[in-house]
Amino acid sequence: MRKEIRLAGTGGQGLLKAGEILAEAAGVYENKKVIQTQSYGPEARGGASKTDIIISDEEILYPKARQVDVICCLSQKSVDAFLKDLKDTGIVIVDSFYVKRCNAKNVFPLPLSTETRQKFGRELFMNIVLLGALAEITKIVTVDSLRNALANRVPPATIETNLKALDLGVFIAQIKD
Amino acid sequence: MRKEIRLAGTGGQGLLKAGEILAEAAGVYENKKVIQTQSYGPEARGGASKTDIIISDEEILYPKARQVDVICCLSQKSVDAFLKDLKDTGIVIVDSFYVKRCNAKNVFPLPLSTETRQKFGRELFMNIVLLGALAEITKIVTVDSLRNALANRVPPATIETNLKALDLGVFIAQIKD
Repeated sequence: MRKEIRLAGTGGQGLLKAGEILAEAAGVYENKKVIQTQSYGPEARGGASKTDIIISDEEILYPKARQVDVICCLSQKSVDAFLKDLKDTGIVIVDSFYVKRCNAKNVFPLPLSTETRQKFGRELFMNIVLLGALAEITKIVTVDSLRNALANRVPPATIETNLKALDLGVFIAQIKD
Repeated sequence: MRKEIRLAGTGGQGLLKAGEILAEAAGVYENKKVIQTQSYGPEARGGASKTDIIISDEEILYPKARQVDVICCLSQKSVDAFLKDLKDTGIVIVDSFYVKRCNAKNVFPLPLSTETRQKFGRELFMNIVLLGALAEITKIVTVDSLRNALANRVPPATIETNLKALDLGVFIAQIKD
């Protein structure tokens, strides 16, 4: 079992942090081998942000994502740039406000940013809302593992709110069409 | 030119964040190709933390660090675990309070944690102090690039203090024996 997950959007959306939490959930709390990778280059100047998480039962010898199983996109630009790496059977989770076009077989448009703004007054926790939705849709990790990992990786004063954001993400994925 | 840099210590020391800042400094502000990688597994339960940054003039086809040029260690455990991957000609930067034994040719023991505590009252900014020292000793990136990258990657209210931490790191490296 090797799963490649990509989180993509714009800088400041907290995707690296979300990747860390996902990676720790799988690696520390579900005993998988996990590698997280992010690239930085001149193209990142425009604010593009992407992190890949590879989760496997066995040692990961080649840590570069090639056939991505799940892509989560929080911007149109990231859809346009990264969809090409999606497996034929892969799925795409997109924010339905920021992403208007996504030409893939299995697309889940979710109102992540809209619901986050509604509940928390701003988009600060959208990265965690995304993680909840990702777990609910893909079952790649359990929400409980995410809970544990999250508590290690966000400022203590924000744990409660982040846990609520996680639950919101699960809920959004449950009520999707 | 391909340089492999490893930042290692315990969880909570902010090494992933330091790696992000280093990677962005080289990738965005010095037009290099950069990949940052971190592994998560059951061994991370004990609080071990490590991130590798590969900086290159050309596209990085194999993103796993094998022959590390520079290892920075903020704990004895990380020295014991990761020194084996150091190049024969590589250098090691260690915190002189947390690391007591380091059997390598080119070791720079620096009072990073002690000076950080003295200046800021706690160790919160030690990761940034380390970056300043790393830049001063290795010249892998300029301090100016680190300044720019840092401003994008720490909470706005903490930028000033982080810039002071960067300067402290440069200073510590300059006055070393």
